[in-house]
Amino acid sequence: MSHRQWKCIQIQRWLICVLIGITTGLVAVIINISIIQLTELKMKIVTQAIEKCVKSACLYQPLLIWITINAGLVMIAALLTVFVAPVAAGSGIPQIKCFLNGVKVPNVVRLKTFFTKVVGIIASVSGGLAVGKEGPMIHAGAVLAAGISQGRSITFKLTFPLFEYFRNDREKRDFVCAGAAAGVAAAFGAPVGGVLFSLEEASSFWNQALTWRIFLCSILSSYSLNFFMSLYHHHGGDLAYPGLINFGKFEGTYEGFELPIFFFMGVIGGLLGALFNAINHKITIFRNKYVTIRFLKVVEVIIVSVVSATIAFMMMFLSAQCNPLGQDINVDLQFLCEDGQYNTMASLFFTPPEDSVKSLFHDPLGSFQPLTIIIFVLPYFFVACWTYGLQVPSGLFIPALLIGAAWGRLIGICMNAICPDCLWSQDVAKYALIGAAAQLGGTVRMTISLTVILIEATGNISYSLPLMTVLMIAKWVGDFFNQGIYDKHVHLAKVPILEWEPPPLSINIHAREVMGTPAVTVREVCLVKDICRVLSDPHNCHSGYPVTNEEGKFRGFVLRSQLLILLKHKVFMERSGPDDRLELAVFRDSYPRYFPLSIVNVSEDEQRCHIDIRPYLNPAPYTISERASLPRIFRLFRALGLRHLVVVNDNFEVVGIVTRKDIWKWGHHGKS
Amino acid sequence: MSHRQWKCIQIQRWLICVLIGITTGLVAVIINISIIQLTELKMKIVTQAIEKCVKSACLYQPLLIWITINAGLVMIAALLTVFVAPVAAGSGIPQIKCFLNGVKVPNVVRLKTFFTKVVGIIASVSGGLAVGKEGPMIHAGAVLAAGISQGRSITFKLTFPLFEYFRNDREKRDFVCAGAAAGVAAAFGAPVGGVLFSLEEASSFWNQALTWRIFLCSILSSYSLNFFMSLYHHHGGDLAYPGLINFGKFEGTYEGFELPIFFFMGVIGGLLGALFNAINHKITIFRNKYVTIRFLKVVEVIIVSVVSATIAFMMMFLSAQCNPLGQDINVDLQFLCEDGQYNTMASLFFTPPEDSVKSLFHDPLGSFQPLTIIIFVLPYFFVACWTYGLQVPSGLFIPALLIGAAWGRLIGICMNAICPDCLWSQDVAKYALIGAAAQLGGTVRMTISLTVILIEATGNISYSLPLMTVLMIAKWVGDFFNQGIYDKHVHLAKVPILEWEPPPLSINIHAREVMGTPAVTVREVCLVKDICRVLSDPHNCHSGYPVTNEEGKFRGFVLRSQLLILLKHKVFMERSGPDDRLELAVFRDSYPRYFPLSIVNVSEDEQRCHIDIRPYLNPAPYTISERASLPRIFRLFRALGLRHLVVVNDNFEVVGIVTRKDIWKWGHHGKS
Repeated sequence: MSHRQWKCIQIQRWLICVLIGITTGLVAVIINISIIQLTELKMKIVTQAIEKCVKSACLYQPLLIWITINAGLVMIAALLTVFVAPVAAGSGIPQIKCFLNGVKVPNVVRLKTFFTKVVGIIASVSGGLAVGKEGPMIHAGAVLAAGISQGRSITFKLTFPLFEYFRNDREKRDFVCAGAAAGVAAAFGAPVGGVLFSLEEASSFWNQALTWRIFLCSILSSYSLNFFMSLYHHHGGDLAYPGLINFGKFEGTYEGFELPIFFFMGVIGGLLGALFNAINHKITIFRNKYVTIRFLKVVEVIIVSVVSATIAFMMMFLSAQCNPLGQDINVDLQFLCEDGQYNTMASLFFTPPEDSVKSLFHDPLGSFQPLTIIIFVLPYFFVACWTYGLQVPSGLFIPALLIGAAWGRLIGICMNAICPDCLWSQDVAKYALIGAAAQLGGTVRMTISLTVILIEATGNISYSLPLMTVLMIAKWVGDFFNQGIYDKHVHLAKVPILEWEPPPLSINIHAREVMGTPAVTVREVCLVKDICRVLSDPHNCHSGYPVTNEEGKFRGFVLRSQLLILLKHKVFMERSGPDDRLELAVFRDSYPRYFPLSIVNVSEDEQRCHIDIRPYLNPAPYTISERASLPRIFRLFRALGLRHLVVVNDNFEVVGIVTRKDIWKWGHHGKS
Repeated sequence: MSHRQWKCIQIQRWLICVLIGITTGLVAVIINISIIQLTELKMKIVTQAIEKCVKSACLYQPLLIWITINAGLVMIAALLTVFVAPVAAGSGIPQIKCFLNGVKVPNVVRLKTFFTKVVGIIASVSGGLAVGKEGPMIHAGAVLAAGISQGRSITFKLTFPLFEYFRNDREKRDFVCAGAAAGVAAAFGAPVGGVLFSLEEASSFWNQALTWRIFLCSILSSYSLNFFMSLYHHHGGDLAYPGLINFGKFEGTYEGFELPIFFFMGVIGGLLGALFNAINHKITIFRNKYVTIRFLKVVEVIIVSVVSATIAFMMMFLSAQCNPLGQDINVDLQFLCEDGQYNTMASLFFTPPEDSVKSLFHDPLGSFQPLTIIIFVLPYFFVACWTYGLQVPSGLFIPALLIGAAWGRLIGICMNAICPDCLWSQDVAKYALIGAAAQLGGTVRMTISLTVILIEATGNISYSLPLMTVLMIAKWVGDFFNQGIYDKHVHLAKVPILEWEPPPLSINIHAREVMGTPAVTVREVCLVKDICRVLSDPHNCHSGYPVTNEEGKFRGFVLRSQLLILLKHKVFMERSGPDDRLELAVFRDSYPRYFPLSIVNVSEDEQRCHIDIRPYLNPAPYTISERASLPRIFRLFRALGLRHLVVVNDNFEVVGIVTRKDIWKWGHHGKS
């Protein structure tokens, strides 16, 4: 490669990031506006029905209308997810986490997944499920990034002659990082939080040039989101318009003596978060066991949707709180209230969930009675537990924030009751915020990226100290009982994800105990027959093989995909001149989906030919001595994102191969 | 190690971080308050002298008094730095950067360095040099962390029987990370920024458990600083008191159409920053060439101090701007003004530099005339250029922010002149802020940690988008001309620091071209005489040696320090039983300062004994094949923080050794 080509590739890298940033922002705008419009439409239809029926005692009619609309929308999401892209279910954060950790997750960054995710999340949020759109937005950003950087779509069988250089795992992973960051930036208006999220999950070592690109990508995503949303809100171009902040602007401050109260709330958040995860864990295990056929999965989603709608409707009945109009800007649903009043419970159910969070944060002190909140939060908690893990795209941030904001506000009301005339207790917003943070921290257990996301999303830095402390406490308390919910789901899916540190007390475990043995090796120059045998061995589906020379010494590493391509192009020594070499482009072109062995036709005659692997193998892969300790191997895997590592003895002969799964098993085993 | 011991060590880790956090905060409080008190005292003395002399035309008297006080204070700083701890000169950020990158920097984390740094920075800031206290605070935090985590002080020959487990490079580096983060948190009130700073510089892969500890450390440092400073400001316990925010609270917002103006300011910042670095580069080269003896170094510092003071004094004369009292809360120095007025220039020179930055940010529109600002900023720019690199502790953040805030305010005044009645142009604070960010970004070129630090230090999140963009633009423009100032100084000091990415176009360079050869090896069992010969070889001062067996096969790696200890304890095969093994504690105990070979007495008789290294060597260090490419080697060094890597051939024989310096040379060579 010449210096000029190198420069050109650098510029392409930046260009791709610009594209990823802008398009991710645009997709977020589309999701946002669709949800707002659909929710408004739904509310209009149901409100009309209620107003018609409230006097003629036919309230079952609006309930039925509501259930039908909700179930219909949710069914679209469920059908798409179950039949088109099952990997689009859930928030997508665990999947992205695994992908960035170095695990191959099938279909995770394909276009059909993107489509399912976007349409599915619009449908499931406006269908009234207890889900948020944030996690899926992150996943959507990641898929966009993968698609743009590769310049091709497998689904549509389209390949543009662009960005060919980036068609390999390492480059793709870097761009997916940027896309996930842009997704966070768009979902929460948190560009710095986005960068941190990516770095935290991507786990490879911090690369400044990459970080700058990710950063640019996040910023552009924020700009493009803010620009289009400001147009939508009729504040065109006013990028500092506070209506763009997800959770509204916090104005207040706090006193030093309130810190212990906040810390106590952190403990509650940790406990409730752990409870949430434990219940969800049980439900997920049950689901994995019994809800296995596709039809049942769709039915379960519809049942949850119907139950959610019915509970919500009943709650509006039960809670008789009516407030004078104008306290809540979001809704003016009269329901059973008198003229000039609105039903507070309805304000929580007939708006996009972000607006409900905003209401709980910012509505004035008296606008929610304690009883209303309790009636709301208890069923919502269990419905949310049930919902996460269904076969629909579903984010977890908003449900957690909603639950936390609700009990946080309750505590704020208590504080106000204790000291009704104090200045500090007038502001319930801060308690709602701390509660929301504690609940979220107790559930997902993310670290500083979460702190930064919350600070950016609330637009107020003065709460940063208490927020951080509360998140830490919630994490500690929660970790005492169980894992974070994403880790739990990764764990349940048995994905060989590597933790942050080697398993404790593994210093005395050595490579020879960890490795898979005997390693299947390939000779430098070998018979086609032998290669076919190795490739078709069902017990050995590694993605690559160590290559040895005649004497059995280790000479390099060759990928399964390379062998397949060599077979397909029949690069046999007997059939070609000494200078016939397959171009790099041929290998790059078939990335990332390689064909199975069965479609390669090798005749009897060809079976006896030889293949010379030497020009194609990686001559100096990372190796490790059989005496190396597990922590040493672990660090190599973790820091370099390896998938396999060849173990050699003192004669440089291959004695085994360590895969990601081998290490993961040890960590897993040590823990249980 | 048992599971219980492992738990115990985990708890100790957290405990140490708690201690580091609190003490760093305390040290920052001491530095802060000392500077405030000394500056006030100085101002009082000079003011009295001026008031006495302003009518009797003896203004040379206060000038002399001022120069004497300044020169005296600065001399203390210079003497300490030159004679006690030269490594304490400058901001300390380049040194910490190198340390965390994996380079051994002598004395960088020793107690005498800490003492010099703290006393020196108090003296040089209150001595009126164009320096800030922020960088040195970070260094101070790092030294504290090293000292606390090791439980010993070499300077005082004290060793506590505490934290012995952590006496090795890897653990110490982790704690120094935490200390640096706590330093940033205390210097800027930016706990998140602190964590990011550490992660960015430490460059090893992101470890979640470590991150949490660093985070706790930063938070505690912020709390302890805020708590004590709120007491000092008579707002005891009010941790949200806005007076604690370094740069005052920003209230305003911005319009979308101002963004291009901000971006343009980013370009100016990049240009001015590059100019600053270029001038400073020339001065540093001159200094390295001619100011070499200690006495001259002290003299240079005093000259700079006298020149700074004289220029400041003359500027107060030249700028005849007098404002009515009360516009600036910091100072009320009448000087040549009429009664009821104060001299604006004096408000920039008689306060701690943070307060000058605050004045430029927040004083109302008319309080500084454009001419005053121009007269201030031009000489200050050059004096600041001259000052950084002197033999005193000196931070660079505040001078850069001061210069940037000055020209930023100028632009704000221009904008106001263009559109005097517009609402958006009433707020000069935002222009001053953007200018400050642009200048800082153009000078130091740090990345997202800087963004977060600025956001946290200004306490306003609504400027985050323009701040980020401006920092990016300033970095791009600056990078077009030269390196960031810290990188420049690291570069001038010829420290083998590794960049973020392998040198471009190095894919065709292989280990055998990079490695040092022939590698000096040691036999598993060898004569004492041979070991002595290897250790005393002046051409080979590697910190370790590959070990081979009789047949020349690679068997492991032994550190120079281990060989020295084995010699000192005379662990000879002829003198000891087969089970006599040196305890791990013996090795740990002599960390980190190992004795030279000369103090080990080996008699003629002993020279003929044998040493069995096998029980002590590292049996499975990372190795690389001689065919490995440079980028592959680079990634191994960078991701794992290696210092040396053994190169082996296909027979597992040692053919060479790659050190950090070898790689650095290639990167260096490729660039120039």
